Amino acid sequence: MTSLRVAVLGVGLIGGSIALSARRRLGAHVSGWDPDAGALERAVQMGAIDTAAGALPEAVAGADYAFVAAPVGACADVALQALEAASAECVVSDAGSTKRRVAAAVSDPRFVPGHPLAGAETAGVDGAREDLFDGALWYFTPADDRSAPALARLSALVQQLGATPVALDPDAHDRLMAAVSQLPHVFANVLVAQALRAAPTAGGSLGDNPSFRDATRVAGANTGVWTDIYVSNADMLAATLDDTISELSGIRDALDAEDAAALSAWNERARENREST
Amino acid sequence: MTSLRVAVLGVGLIGGSIALSARRRLGAHVSGWDPDAGALERAVQMGAIDTAAGALPEAVAGADYAFVAAPVGACADVALQALEAASAECVVSDAGSTKRRVAAAVSDPRFVPGHPLAGAETAGVDGAREDLFDGALWYFTPADDRSAPALARLSALVQQLGATPVALDPDAHDRLMAAVSQLPHVFANVLVAQALRAAPTAGGSLGDNPSFRDATRVAGANTGVWTDIYVSNADMLAATLDDTISELSGIRDALDAEDAAALSAWNERARENREST
Repeated sequence: MTSLRVAVLGVGLIGGSIALSARRRLGAHVSGWDPDAGALERAVQMGAIDTAAGALPEAVAGADYAFVAAPVGACADVALQALEAASAECVVSDAGSTKRRVAAAVSDPRFVPGHPLAGAETAGVDGAREDLFDGALWYFTPADDRSAPALARLSALVQQLGATPVALDPDAHDRLMAAVSQLPHVFANVLVAQALRAAPTAGGSLGDNPSFRDATRVAGANTGVWTDIYVSNADMLAATLDDTISELSGIRDALDAEDAAALSAWNERARENREST
Repeated sequence: MTSLRVAVLGVGLIGGSIALSARRRLGAHVSGWDPDAGALERAVQMGAIDTAAGALPEAVAGADYAFVAAPVGACADVALQALEAASAECVVSDAGSTKRRVAAAVSDPRFVPGHPLAGAETAGVDGAREDLFDGALWYFTPADDRSAPALARLSALVQQLGATPVALDPDAHDRLMAAVSQLPHVFANVLVAQALRAAPTAGGSLGDNPSFRDATRVAGANTGVWTDIYVSNADMLAATLDDTISELSGIRDALDAEDAAALSAWNERARENREST
């Protein structure tokens, strides 16, 4: 019986963790490719991948599964290259943080767009961990029913990597991520700016406030990764910011009026909302 | 040698923790008062206070230190009553989350407004802990130099309770809290609303996103406590929200234009800002 063969295209934090986990937990043979030769070499040295491929098709040849773990803006292009090189039995997925673009650009029953909810605020193979996906949600956003067999195989695989697979419509996924992932990152960036405006000479002491520390952990997360994410979901994030600005304006007016009843009612709704999230 | 005598006026989370810590760490005799007879009884039962006073002046009689741990809107009134009952040698402080109002309303060299940075999002004596202030900042906002001796004594005491005392101007304190404490609470409330708008049937799964979980820990915090805080700092929080809305509008426009360069530059500034906080 031959072992499972997995290709990882992009060996950063996510690709490296998929590789490590597949090797150690499933005994898979993992072939890696990355446009950054240094990262690829490092992935071999740390035992994340078995083979460093010189070119993308070489990594995918003979693979049962190929994961595209590239910046979100490059996912569709790399996925198309992977599908061209992949066998008829290979299934291909990506790990980009937004899904509408890749879902629209790649139409192949062997492909299912994916998004593991893990570690987006850091980057680099040195942070890769075998257990990165333990207990994490792993979204899949199939374009249509033709990819149902591929979805079933991918779901089974990521469960073996410790994750919980969840199938979702690409639109619903991107709307959700605008609210629960991109908006917290925007708020974190705004919070550090406001804090420094209030205390320009804080000198490292502001993190003593627990709510500030929690809310700013992801401020200034990897700029390349996050610019790509914001642009790829620009319309939905802009709509979320419109709603947000409207809510903040209402709170601002209640403060101007020192309207304790309105502020109480708003906070009570937040308490109820929180219990529903 | 008689033991230290401490009065705690209001035996919720903060007052109860001051009491517990003063008794256990300093061997102080602690007299407590609270308008809620049930809370007062509970404080005796759990060993936070030695004596439950039937009225405020009775608690303060003979005290070396009196701490007003009331809702922020009641602090000035309770502090004035405490000062009237207190001896010439007693020093009095409060623990309200905003400081301009109490600093303006109470002018007595025995009084220094205070604010320990701990536990504002919960309430109640049952959460009181001896170690609540370990490693926490404890702000003092003296109105003028007349209270310098009282400030020195209070600073020494709270250090013995585990905190780091920091003297600050009342205006600077309230501006800082608008940015690092109240704004994170406002954002947490907005985030849960936006998340439920994006995923009305989330059913408890949204917290799987780490940045969302961290940023919403304080959503819908105790409504009585926080309405009081928001109203007491309404002008500075409103100004902070104006700045925030302006920054969010800029980001919204950059998203509309899919302006990757502007989004990158903004995120890089956040990264630099974060390193300065």
